[in-house]
Amino acid sequence: MKNSKATLLISCPDQRGLVAKFANFIYSNGGNIIHADQHTDFAAGLFLTRIEWQLDGFNLPRDLISPAFNSIGQPLGAKWELHFSDTVPRIAIWVSRQDHCLFDLIWRQRAKEFTAEIPLIISNHPDLKVVADQFGIDFQHIPITKDNKQEQEAKQLELLRHYKIDLVVLAKYMQIVSADFISQFPLIINIHHSFLPAFIGANPYHRAFERGVKIIGATAHYATADLDAGPIIEQDVVRVSHRDEVDDLVRKGKDLERVVLARAVRSHLQNRVLVYGNRTVVFE
Amino acid sequence: MKNSKATLLISCPDQRGLVAKFANFIYSNGGNIIHADQHTDFAAGLFLTRIEWQLDGFNLPRDLISPAFNSIGQPLGAKWELHFSDTVPRIAIWVSRQDHCLFDLIWRQRAKEFTAEIPLIISNHPDLKVVADQFGIDFQHIPITKDNKQEQEAKQLELLRHYKIDLVVLAKYMQIVSADFISQFPLIINIHHSFLPAFIGANPYHRAFERGVKIIGATAHYATADLDAGPIIEQDVVRVSHRDEVDDLVRKGKDLERVVLARAVRSHLQNRVLVYGNRTVVFE
Amino acid sequence: MKNSKATLLISCPDQRGLVAKFANFIYSNGGNIIHADQHTDFAAGLFLTRIEWQLDGFNLPRDLISPAFNSIGQPLGAKWELHFSDTVPRIAIWVSRQDHCLFDLIWRQRAKEFTAEIPLIISNHPDLKVVADQFGIDFQHIPITKDNKQEQEAKQLELLRHYKIDLVVLAKYMQIVSADFISQFPLIINIHHSFLPAFIGANPYHRAFERGVKIIGATAHYATADLDAGPIIEQDVVRVSHRDEVDDLVRKGKDLERVVLARAVRSHLQNRVLVYGNRTVVFE
Amino acid sequence: MKNSKATLLISCPDQRGLVAKFANFIYSNGGNIIHADQHTDFAAGLFLTRIEWQLDGFNLPRDLISPAFNSIGQPLGAKWELHFSDTVPRIAIWVSRQDHCLFDLIWRQRAKEFTAEIPLIISNHPDLKVVADQFGIDFQHIPITKDNKQEQEAKQLELLRHYKIDLVVLAKYMQIVSADFISQFPLIINIHHSFLPAFIGANPYHRAFERGVKIIGATAHYATADLDAGPIIEQDVVRVSHRDEVDDLVRKGKDLERVVLARAVRSHLQNRVLVYGNRTVVFE
Repeated sequence: MKNSKATLLISCPDQRGLVAKFANFIYSNGGNIIHADQHTDFAAGLFLTRIEWQLDGFNLPRDLISPAFNSIGQPLGAKWELHFSDTVPRIAIWVSRQDHCLFDLIWRQRAKEFTAEIPLIISNHPDLKVVADQFGIDFQHIPITKDNKQEQEAKQLELLRHYKIDLVVLAKYMQIVSADFISQFPLIINIHHSFLPAFIGANPYHRAFERGVKIIGATAHYATADLDAGPIIEQDVVRVSHRDEVDDLVRKGKDLERVVLARAVRSHLQNRVLVYGNRTVVFE
Repeated sequence: MKNSKATLLISCPDQRGLVAKFANFIYSNGGNIIHADQHTDFAAGLFLTRIEWQLDGFNLPRDLISPAFNSIGQPLGAKWELHFSDTVPRIAIWVSRQDHCLFDLIWRQRAKEFTAEIPLIISNHPDLKVVADQFGIDFQHIPITKDNKQEQEAKQLELLRHYKIDLVVLAKYMQIVSADFISQFPLIINIHHSFLPAFIGANPYHRAFERGVKIIGATAHYATADLDAGPIIEQDVVRVSHRDEVDDLVRKGKDLERVVLARAVRSHLQNRVLVYGNRTVVFE
Repeated sequence: MKNSKATLLISCPDQRGLVAKFANFIYSNGGNIIHADQHTDFAAGLFLTRIEWQLDGFNLPRDLISPAFNSIGQPLGAKWELHFSDTVPRIAIWVSRQDHCLFDLIWRQRAKEFTAEIPLIISNHPDLKVVADQFGIDFQHIPITKDNKQEQEAKQLELLRHYKIDLVVLAKYMQIVSADFISQFPLIINIHHSFLPAFIGANPYHRAFERGVKIIGATAHYATADLDAGPIIEQDVVRVSHRDEVDDLVRKGKDLERVVLARAVRSHLQNRVLVYGNRTVVFE
Repeated sequence: MKNSKATLLISCPDQRGLVAKFANFIYSNGGNIIHADQHTDFAAGLFLTRIEWQLDGFNLPRDLISPAFNSIGQPLGAKWELHFSDTVPRIAIWVSRQDHCLFDLIWRQRAKEFTAEIPLIISNHPDLKVVADQFGIDFQHIPITKDNKQEQEAKQLELLRHYKIDLVVLAKYMQIVSADFISQFPLIINIHHSFLPAFIGANPYHRAFERGVKIIGATAHYATADLDAGPIIEQDVVRVSHRDEVDDLVRKGKDLERVVLARAVRSHLQNRVLVYGNRTVVFE
């Protein structure tokens, strides 16, 4: 496709000459770098970089880029991901009963704020089928109880395979996804309605109200087996006062949740997020 | 004194007619209300109000205001405080080795951002005596060890009495004040270098870095026996990124700490903070 | 209706006893004040207040409240508005081609973030009829040219009358409404896509980019004959950097525009905005 | 000196291979890049980059770096600056009567938030000599009138030469510096007490109050002949309300001014600011 770009996300033990080596790999094959950013985590001894270049004029065919880069990266001990801008990722949005993040993500996808397809909505409640219908998206109602979780997660995994899903977005899904599920499908972004690590777990707005905080927040992070402890992608906050009841925190929080989740999803889809350990580098 | 004002801070079980009753008390005695604000906590069933009026033209002499208001407030079950704007509160600033909040509070006091005297600085280290000298403030070095805490706190209390201190400001004091001390001198404002309740306790910036948060904060609160759990007066935050090392969090945090602490101290000194339970109303 | 409330918004030359007089009016008629806030603009010599009380138990029938209050307010030189919480205001949303504010306002109305009906959408372009249809709202396409503005505005006014509209929201309408129109229908809230008074007029994002600002903003204000100069209700900002092209400013700005406009509309509908001169008091 | 670093700030017509060429220059001479960031302004057709590397192990002596880089940069049409981290820049702070930015910059310099010497304070008023004395900094009182501006600016230039000043910081100097002066000494950072381009010129807080804005700001920029129109380095804002009088805007603004100015000065001193046209890239 015309104007297509490739992106390398690389993490590598720090050493002299990495910028030059990686840039030379692109340049010597005729590529034009349009974005290169890097970060060194001195404590971890890691060099982390994102390089994006135009495929027009690049001499290597797509299927040979990885093998070719391997001859450079492997001796350096690098880990990397390679992405192409014309591969459109497929998202499944998981919801419960609240529609604000769902509406928002659909609106942004249609407004082309990010490039993705949204072929599937999964919910443990039937309420938002009407929204799915409104936008012509398949809706799968998979109610979860204490007793059926394992078999329902098997169904969910089957659906993700069937729809060829690349990314699950938990858009206020309000259910814990099991460690076993995550080990089988690890690319999951969750929005937690607090400024993590404050108010981990249930009912963060009620607990924020009870604590009498003057600011509330929202956090988008990758889901991990350890609840609310995954790598943070984005956070934001809003000021509250004694005048705000729990309902006001919920209302103000919704505006936060949708924008924080949307920014995280967009950064992820643009291959700007590099995870190492429990941390992220979000390249701008 | 000319242009003096009185302020009532009242909390009272909610019932019909409170606004009218309190306003009539001022008006019928010839007072001119220049600020009246109120809040009802419906869950707690409490009416909370701040009324400020000019003493010029007010018919009651100062020492009769409390007894007179008592005849209204007592039957309603109200608790209240009465303050006069020309009573200049006396502050003791407690520090450890960091000088940013100390400098800032002294500068603001001299710039008349709030009205107070600062006759005393107490520290467990001698380092900041030079700052105290620079501004002509008495400095008392009271080193704290595991073994001498009780007797040193006795000395501190004696100093607060001697200097007629109304408010202690823990401006990065970095020591725990005992429950016993607080029970004897409860008016203490502390600055905690995190967005409470995240990172309660020691080394919040290190732990924020390790958690990989994208925003850090600072919290000013009244000290209570339960560490970092007192009523919050003010909080603020600043954005950080993967580029910020622990030292950067510390540096960015200093700017937060001084402004958050200063706002809390100013609100307190202007009698704008009403504490009930573990919450505050900060009247604007 | 049960649980109905009345609200008085009063502006009055400042004088002794106003708080007591207004509170007594409510109390002596059996009303229970649930919100009272006030502000004195000393420079203008004006006392501005908002009083909200429960109609349950209030002795005056609705149609006698205004005449009764008149006997107090008129001698004081007060101007006031009286509103009832069970009167549901009717909004017309005017749009051009951009749908983000439209979607957002419809979503918030359905989520009950504010109480209003939205029976009418007017646009100078046909593009957003599809959104109107999706939500079952009447859509009127009234294209504006240099030559037909006067007659088209007459049609618009006729529509506002026909649909019994109380408030027009210019949700990125991108057209100037004439002074004559505003004189006939003055309740209009506009969203301007800059931090006014910076970048008054056309193409604020392009001009912000050219100026190299590090922060962009949005402003919701009442429309007046003097373009972009009306009383400001709400503003907010977002940080940008050299990495943001004009398209990024537009994208980031959309998030601002919808939240700033929504807050202004909500404050207005809750009768929290008091306009005097070219200023607003927004009671919290 | 041990651990010294060199920094290149380069702007260059965009073309293929620039990242590789510049990185190779460092690498092939044995340098270890510790920071490399870049930006492409596609509209301007410019590639802008900042490269920082360790001098330990670098094969080129300092005085040969520029000539060596010239052989690469000159054919590409690049402009560049070369800086060494162990060259301590010398700052002159110019003030009028307000001391908040002065105190703040001195405190930060002593707290090592940036590396610089501050040998000179210049003022058109004698008031802040006491602060200069407190910190042992030379103070020159150069009163400016309509009639003596030209000769006084000559004195100021002479002082800058005498003290070997690298950067002038206008820390609320409140005087216009002539175009002629700027042409002779162009490295000047100014703090303007508004969110530019709003309220260009005099009395921005009064005009912000009159306009009834809900947010105020501050802007740090390089001084240019065209008043308040120079390249913006940093801006920030704070929320205000109808309760804030002009004095409150001034007070809140001071907190903004000092932090915005300090961030701009720090970025400049760390050679993170690249100016092109009327814009800046501030590398993080």
